Order: sequence, then structure tokens, then C-alpha cells
Amino acid sequence: MRLSLSKLLQSERPKTWAKTVRIAVSGAAGSISNHLLFKLASGEVFGQDQPIALQLLGSERSRSALEGVAMELEDSLYPLLREVTIGIDPYEIFQNADWALLIGAKPRGPGMERADLLDINGQIFAEQGKALNAVASPNVKVIVVGNPCNTNALICLKNAPRIPSKNFHALTRLDENRAKCQLALKAGVFYDNVSNVTIWGNHSTTQVPDFLNAKIHGLPVNEVIADHKWLEEEFTSRVQKRGGALIQKWGRSSAASTAVSIVDAIKSLIIRTPEGDWFSSGVYAKGNLYGISEDLVFSLPCRSKGDGDYEIVGDLVIDDYLRKRIKKTEEELLAEKKCVAHLIGEGNGFCDLPEDTMLPGEQ
Amino acid sequence: MRLSLSKLLQSERPKTWAKTVRIAVSGAAGSISNHLLFKLASGEVFGQDQPIALQLLGSERSRSALEGVAMELEDSLYPLLREVTIGIDPYEIFQNADWALLIGAKPRGPGMERADLLDINGQIFAEQGKALNAVASPNVKVIVVGNPCNTNALICLKNAPRIPSKNFHALTRLDENRAKCQLALKAGVFYDNVSNVTIWGNHSTTQVPDFLNAKIHGLPVNEVIADHKWLEEEFTSRVQKRGGALIQKWGRSSAASTAVSIVDAIKSLIIRTPEGDWFSSGVYAKGNLYGISEDLVFSLPCRSKGDGDYEIVGDLVIDDYLRKRIKKTEEELLAEKKCVAHLIGEGNGFCDLPEDTMLPGEQ
Repeated sequence: MRLSLSKLLQSERPKTWAKTVRIAVSGAAGSISNHLLFKLASGEVFGQDQPIALQLLGSERSRSALEGVAMELEDSLYPLLREVTIGIDPYEIFQNADWALLIGAKPRGPGMERADLLDINGQIFAEQGKALNAVASPNVKVIVVGNPCNTNALICLKNAPRIPSKNFHALTRLDENRAKCQLALKAGVFYDNVSNVTIWGNHSTTQVPDFLNAKIHGLPVNEVIADHKWLEEEFTSRVQKRGGALIQKWGRSSAASTAVSIVDAIKSLIIRTPEGDWFSSGVYAKGNLYGISEDLVFSLPCRSKGDGDYEIVGDLVIDDYLRKRIKKTEEELLAEKKCVAHLIGEGNGFCDLPEDTMLPGEQ
Repeated sequence: MRLSLSKLLQSERPKTWAKTVRIAVSGAAGSISNHLLFKLASGEVFGQDQPIALQLLGSERSRSALEGVAMELEDSLYPLLREVTIGIDPYEIFQNADWALLIGAKPRGPGMERADLLDINGQIFAEQGKALNAVASPNVKVIVVGNPCNTNALICLKNAPRIPSKNFHALTRLDENRAKCQLALKAGVFYDNVSNVTIWGNHSTTQVPDFLNAKIHGLPVNEVIADHKWLEEEFTSRVQKRGGALIQKWGRSSAASTAVSIVDAIKSLIIRTPEGDWFSSGVYAKGNLYGISEDLVFSLPCRSKGDGDYEIVGDLVIDDYLRKRIKKTEEELLAEKKCVAHLIGEGNGFCDLPEDTMLPGEQ
């Protein structure tokens, strides 16, 4: 279904405008999208002279809610929003997408194991990968938010051989933002003085927020925060438990700050990374210089020239403390990959996940 | 309670920045605020070089949710957001506020009459008016969103004699935006070609969306939309019923587009109105040239030089059709005023409201 305003595109679009950026969003009727779509439409992400089209993917169950979202977008009179398409078929909705923000995923039901979740969501992301492969822009950039996002992104890229593997991202930016916030609070500085924060590995409780390479006011965090015990024993768990703490306070999951971190993740790819800094993203690990298994989607330090592409930063220092932890999150991702072997063309899936590593406060 | 980051203000704020704009928001843990606060913090409203402080008012019941909102704001690392204060005492939270966005109001319970609602919320807004009078910036701009917003705004301004009455607004911008959207859809043009739309009167079902003075592509709407029957018989009800239609589709009220319209209302006061155009706001009607009772908060066409102040536009054409409707919404506001006489220093309140005029989909 295409909304009525889209018909007006041809006649009413100023001739001077840039080519419309087409953004497909799955889970479009959910609470993260309810924040994100309005940010995209406002011009906050792609700039005040960039017209955009939103292509919203929902489920049969959420169809009516999708119509509601589209109505609210209409009522907001955003001048840059030139088209809204809604639907439940990824082969229709992903057409010519320049960006695909894959937020929708089945939440874990009561008694459901992580293995079950991997399988159910894996099937969704295999299907969406095939749809992207068939109909999206050949250089589409894909950001996977639905959990378990790293392995979902791996499944997606394996099912989309026409699209460069490096175009697929799993969102670890909220983890990075939370890590920066905790370091700023501990050091008593404002956030924007914290830089070079890396999240390594999986978006799960095995993730490794890296304070060894992080900087505050350009100095190593170790030199600014004297409390090394806090860094080694508390910092990581504070980052991981932030979502859970928020649910306890707030009674709902952190939709608004997740949406903000998706905006940050997009901006990191379309704006040149400040000299000497980097950002974290779950990316296809091929060519990494850290000895991490290359056929995984692994959160790594990246930098971009602002052209939508990025390179993995290769010169971070890895000490024994960090190496041990990175190994653990890598092993988890390898085990998750075995679980979904049937979805990535590698034979039968076999699941042996020793523990539940979902982040508290996430589904 | 003041959050930890606020301590860092002095040491970490760039010396070159403008004076912080202090924005108090009531109902800060609610769903409209959950959209609005992130817009304010992002710089979308006051600009990318304007530091802001958010002063968040909640209730005893929402205290913990307020802490959650503040945590999500922290995790968003907004560089312009230099301070977040949360609390439940308006005399604390409104201190030195440059803007007060009064969103919080008691929703109507089952079986509650509009008269009861007027009384309960009137007491809240009387108290908040007194608090603004006592502690806010003497030139604070106040936008009342909580319903019934016109009469709440009147109560608020009557209880704040130190603050100019013209600084108080009742939000009718969402109505204006919806009216523009409906005219655009009907005419088959893009929204930004619709201008000069006025909402007259009360934010209720007696409101008068004005197509007589509205323009499309600079031409009178009457000349562009040939279907005059639609304009006279359908247009108004489409605008009024939009919120109700949305709730039916979406299962929730239109928090996102309400937040967008609050942003629009603020921007209309801090950005010069385009030549020849105007915007709608519920303002103190003193000095209006339309013969409308002056001691009301009445939605009128306004224009601004962008200095936070505005003037009522005085030269709109009023025909019999419009005059009759404006009279009806004026009578309703006069009746509402009688209901709350005890809250504005005019003796005993006496309520005689003939019908329920709450907008569908609102509380």
C-alpha cells in the first residue's frame, strides 16, 4: 500500500533537490521505530536538504498500527519526507532501498531458549537477506538491530551474495554510548571528552567494552581514572546492565536511546570520523588484524570517510585481559554460527550454547 | 534531585557558548514528553549551538520513570544537553525557566464529566501558575498542552500576574498541522504549499479550522478545491476526528505528532514568520480585532519576529459561516471560564456545560 501523498512526488518535488534516499525499516510499528522514523523524517540524520522516502515493513498483526504511524508522519508535515510506503512483504518494501534498518524481530517468549530464538529470528533474517538481495539497491547499507543481532546480520549477509558483506552492520552503538556515559560519569567529565571507545564482539553479555584503548581528554582512561578496580570489575557490568536498570526504573525498554544510537550509527557512516577517533560497529570481520575468526559479524573499531563505507581500525593494543575476553565473545559467536548453519548454507544447525547471554532489558 | 552530570557544567562548558536555555517540562515521564525531550536535547528546536537544561516535573507516582528518562537522555550523549533536573515540586523545577511546556494533566477517569476535569486540572494549573510566578524567568514563555488546555492556560496566567499574559499559549498547533495535511491531501499538493491556516477558538470539538482565509500555492483554498461541500461539511470533522481515527488504528494516542507540533509551536516563536503567513496559537485574546471576548485564551492567527514574542494578525476576513462558528467556540470558552471562576479570583465557580466537547482520541 502506498499512501496518497506519494502520488504527489513527481509534480511537487523541487527540481533542485538531491535524489531521494530510500530507507526501509522493519519492525516499523514498534517503539524503537516510533522514535526513529520521526528522526529520519525531520532531517536530523541525512541533513536538511536531503529528501527521503520511508518504506515501512510490519507484520500482518501490526498492519493497522503501521497505518497509524503513517498518519502521524503525515500530520507532522515534514517537508523532507516525500513518500511513505507500508506493507508486510519484504520483496515489496525493500525495493531500491539505500538503507535497511532491520529492527523487527520476534521477542523471546516464556521458556524459550536462546537457541530457539536464534532459529526463529534466523529464519526471518534469512528471508529478509534474500529479499534485499533481490530488490534493494546493490550498495544498500544494512543495520541489524533485532536480536541476536550479530548472528542475524551474518545470516542476512550470507543470504544476500549480491550485496557486499561489509555493508552489513549489527548495532553495538548503544553499548558504546552507554560505555562512554559511564566513563564520563566516573571521571567527572562531560561526555564529549570521552573518545576511542570500542565494543568488541557480540551484542550480548560477553561483549567487551574496551577501556584500555579509550581516551578521556585525549589521555588514556587508565591515567585519568585512578580506580582501576572499578574499570576491571564494575565498568563492563554497568554497561551491560544499563538496559535492565532502565526497565526497572521506567517499566519499558530503552526505545528512545536505542533510536538515538541508530541515528549515531548511520551518521558515523555518512560523516567523516574525527581524526584519530573511531566508532564501534558489528561488521563482517574479514581482514581484521586481531586474529579474530573472519567469517563472523563482530563488533570492531571502525572509521569512515563519510561515504557510507568504512575501514576496520587495525592498530589497537590488546593486552592479556582484553585478549581473554575477546576470545570468549568470539567463541560465543562461533557457537551461535553453528546453531544457524542451516540458514547460511553450511549443513545442519547444531546448538550448544552453554549459558544465556541475552543482555538484561532486551528481548 | 539533580543528576551527576550537572556538576560538570562549570568546568566543562565551552566558554564561547550562548547562555543555557532552561526548559521546564511537566508530565515529563509521559509519552508525549518521551518524544519531545529527545527533540529538545538534540538541538532540533533551539539550534546546534544552543546549550539547554531540561527541568523535568513529574508526580510522586512517576518519580522512578523520570529517573529512567534521565538515564536514557544521559545514554544519548547529546552534546548540547548540559543539565537535567528532575523533581515533583514545581517551585523547585520551574526555577529560572525560560520556557515552560505544561504537558502533564490528570486524564479523565470513567464517568468523569468535563466539569470535573476542569476543576481537577484547573487546580493543578493554578498551582503551577503560582510556581511560575514565584520562581521562573520573568519573561518565561508558557505552552499549555494538558487538557482542557485553553482554560488551563487562562487559569495559569491569572495565577501568575508577574508574567505578561501574552506569554501564555494553549497548543492548537497539532490541529493546524492536521488541517494543513487534510487540505493538502484533498487538493493533491504537497503540505508545504498550504499556508495561512487558522484554528479559531477552543482546542475542543467547537474549534474552527478556517479554510476561508487559508491558501494553497498562494491562492484562496476555495479557488483550488472545487468541492465546497467537502470544505463546509467534512473538512472540520476530519481535523477533529483525526486523533480518534489514530487511536483506532494505532491503539495509542498521537504522542509523536503532538511532540512535533510542540516543536513547531516553539519554532514559530523563535523564528520569524514567513512574510504574509501566520500560525495558530491559543493566546490571551486582549486587543484582538475580531470582537472576541478579550479575557479568554483563544486560538488566533499570530505572527512573530522570531524574538519569542508575537502579534495577533488582525486582517482576516470573517464571513457569516465563520462568524457563527467562532461565536459558538467563544461561548464554550466563556462557559468554561465560569466553571473555574474560583481558580481565577472571580468568585464561585458555576458549571453549565451543555455537551461533551473533548476531542476524540484525547484525554
